[in-house]
Amino acid sequence: MYRARLQAIFDSLKFDKPFQVVLPDGQAATHGRAPFAFTVRIKTNRALRDIIMKSSLGFGEAYSNGEVDVEGDMLALSLLSYELQSGPMRGTFLQRALYALGFAARKNTVTRAKKNIAAHYDLANSFYELWLDTEMQYTCAYFYKPTDTLEAAQRQKMELVCRKLRLKPGEFVVEAGCGWGGLALHMARNYGVRVKSFNISQEQIAFARDKAARLGIGTDRVEYVLDDYRNIPNYVTSCDKFASICMLEHVGRESYAAFHRLVSKVLRKPGLAMLQFISRTNPSPISNPWLEKYVFPGYYNPSLGEIVTPIEKEHHQLHLVDVENMRYHYALTLTHWLDRLERNAERVRAEWGEKVLRTFRLYLSGGLADFSSGAGTLVYQMLLSHGFDNAAPLTRHHFYAAAPGELRPVSAPTLEPA
Amino acid sequence: MYRARLQAIFDSLKFDKPFQVVLPDGQAATHGRAPFAFTVRIKTNRALRDIIMKSSLGFGEAYSNGEVDVEGDMLALSLLSYELQSGPMRGTFLQRALYALGFAARKNTVTRAKKNIAAHYDLANSFYELWLDTEMQYTCAYFYKPTDTLEAAQRQKMELVCRKLRLKPGEFVVEAGCGWGGLALHMARNYGVRVKSFNISQEQIAFARDKAARLGIGTDRVEYVLDDYRNIPNYVTSCDKFASICMLEHVGRESYAAFHRLVSKVLRKPGLAMLQFISRTNPSPISNPWLEKYVFPGYYNPSLGEIVTPIEKEHHQLHLVDVENMRYHYALTLTHWLDRLERNAERVRAEWGEKVLRTFRLYLSGGLADFSSGAGTLVYQMLLSHGFDNAAPLTRHHFYAAAPGELRPVSAPTLEPA
Repeated sequence: MYRARLQAIFDSLKFDKPFQVVLPDGQAATHGRAPFAFTVRIKTNRALRDIIMKSSLGFGEAYSNGEVDVEGDMLALSLLSYELQSGPMRGTFLQRALYALGFAARKNTVTRAKKNIAAHYDLANSFYELWLDTEMQYTCAYFYKPTDTLEAAQRQKMELVCRKLRLKPGEFVVEAGCGWGGLALHMARNYGVRVKSFNISQEQIAFARDKAARLGIGTDRVEYVLDDYRNIPNYVTSCDKFASICMLEHVGRESYAAFHRLVSKVLRKPGLAMLQFISRTNPSPISNPWLEKYVFPGYYNPSLGEIVTPIEKEHHQLHLVDVENMRYHYALTLTHWLDRLERNAERVRAEWGEKVLRTFRLYLSGGLADFSSGAGTLVYQMLLSHGFDNAAPLTRHHFYAAAPGELRPVSAPTLEPA
Repeated sequence: MYRARLQAIFDSLKFDKPFQVVLPDGQAATHGRAPFAFTVRIKTNRALRDIIMKSSLGFGEAYSNGEVDVEGDMLALSLLSYELQSGPMRGTFLQRALYALGFAARKNTVTRAKKNIAAHYDLANSFYELWLDTEMQYTCAYFYKPTDTLEAAQRQKMELVCRKLRLKPGEFVVEAGCGWGGLALHMARNYGVRVKSFNISQEQIAFARDKAARLGIGTDRVEYVLDDYRNIPNYVTSCDKFASICMLEHVGRESYAAFHRLVSKVLRKPGLAMLQFISRTNPSPISNPWLEKYVFPGYYNPSLGEIVTPIEKEHHQLHLVDVENMRYHYALTLTHWLDRLERNAERVRAEWGEKVLRTFRLYLSGGLADFSSGAGTLVYQMLLSHGFDNAAPLTRHHFYAAAPGELRPVSAPTLEPA
């Protein structure tokens, strides 16, 4: 019965890769002909029932538990899941209801946020060291060309942030959400600024403090504070620049206006704020329920309008200076992460178990599909100014200045007379 | 009585320039001490009453009619008017009511739009030739440095649009709102593209056609169509690129969603659309009532959120690629226009009369104050892609390629190892 129903869906499907799904009884539903790009083996009836009832949530759980196996091209499978969700199996009532229940339970209160963040980021620093770059950048890198190494691309991302912020020696930077602290160190070492970075992940803060100490960077230059971004005004009355790289995804839909008010409160005029965040083309209450439950509790990727509109409702003089869509950079970043994870699969399996390996494989493959397929997931760098500054550079040439640490605008190209 | 009331307002005012206002009876209210940056002479009781009742609308009318004179720094006066409107005289009920009445009468129906546009743009081509650049660009220029000539800056603006759109020989471009046709000619001559440009101003279309003919550019390369942008689908089924430079200001608040649907209908996938538009930091039903009545009937400058949100409500796959805030470029542009107008004041007065001279002086000075003061008026270039394109350039280096017409990406800067 299930086979026939699945087969009917696969027959009507527009999808360019052949694949098969093998059910617990050994029967297979196929799309196209062998050789298949991938084979999905649903090994237990429980897994089959969960996939039917809970869609991607059920699939994710069953795959992580080993009750579903995937042979072949995992990325193609993720792309298929978008195809299915935007077509025959799009947002059923059941899915929405399940998701709403789960989401309501995980609002980002200060206490809840700590647990949400700990669930993911406190897993173990040594785990992330296996597949991130040497600077432990767990956000989208910036590639000048697709063949750049991950290390180069992450440095380029940090440089781009510094250049857009036009950091000058002696300035004071506040960072909301600092991961393992790499950007703060890059800023302090290359631009001579003081940085105060906030994070609620104990593991990350411990790692960052340890690294700064080893590098001889004192707390007078970089200070990592284990506290919620909402408490920044307890530590800072005024800063010259503000940065938040991929933390807005953990802030929650109801809190963007408060976030902006916080920025306008601590950032001097004129001052600049850089927000990098994963975004979506269309606001929707439905995120990926499996991802939300098992990988990023409480996450929500805001649309550009969801970030911009609350700013426009207030008169705190935060103004949008520049927006850059870096969508495909995240696809390239995820390709590197996934590749490194797979190269370290044996070690991950041995130290953290099959389930962690499968969870991260599924999440990274899904992300890669998201960012490369046009499923509606993007990433933006958004530069805001607090107040106006008529002395600011007229063009964006300085974003692409020649060497890291050197913040001189590239000389403007001269135009021949037309 | 009026003098005492004015004096009380001026005494409580925070404004860095001294000035005086002389009333019809010869009495003066002052702020600070002589020498004054400017003197406003209200010469008739009617003018005084209109200013009190209708604020900036009354002032504009009285100044244009010569019942008010301004000696000295007109820009400083415009800045003062923002100070007053954001403080003691902010949005009175009467002002709002008057404005709402005026605004409701001027919705941009297809018929009304024609009249609105004719009111301004059909004044006389020779009038605009006196103070615009040689390419007759009546939109914000792009300055590489503040000392660029207006001619260079307008060419740079056209180049920037072409580069952001990544025009390739043989492509077909649709332009919604083409002014005197300069951009279409620049595109066709420098990039080998075909362009179809729409405009409802008879005078402008006649000028553009004439110029193209003189340059030997046939309608197979550039075709100017005298028709409303809403009728574009009657002429075009598919185009490679779409441009609309400062026309959204005439589209009206209720029509952005329809505008985007039109773009998504005629633009192929993947394709790029460039929208340049004057914007505001905060949406508001109140535009400048004098400007709306006497200079740009039916105008409304949309906020970024007002443009972005309707896109996010639909699934037509228009995605935001890049936003550049060019606010101060418009201040520089207006400085040039105002300067050229003043240098041609005698001729304007002789051919078009004192009232036209005064109207345009007030409007250009007010615009200069807007864009240089942080009163909340901005201008954006927004690049949209229709669908996703993983083969698009990763960085924005190509926006700043070396010579006009050459569309090769500048070689990416190499980063030293950190």
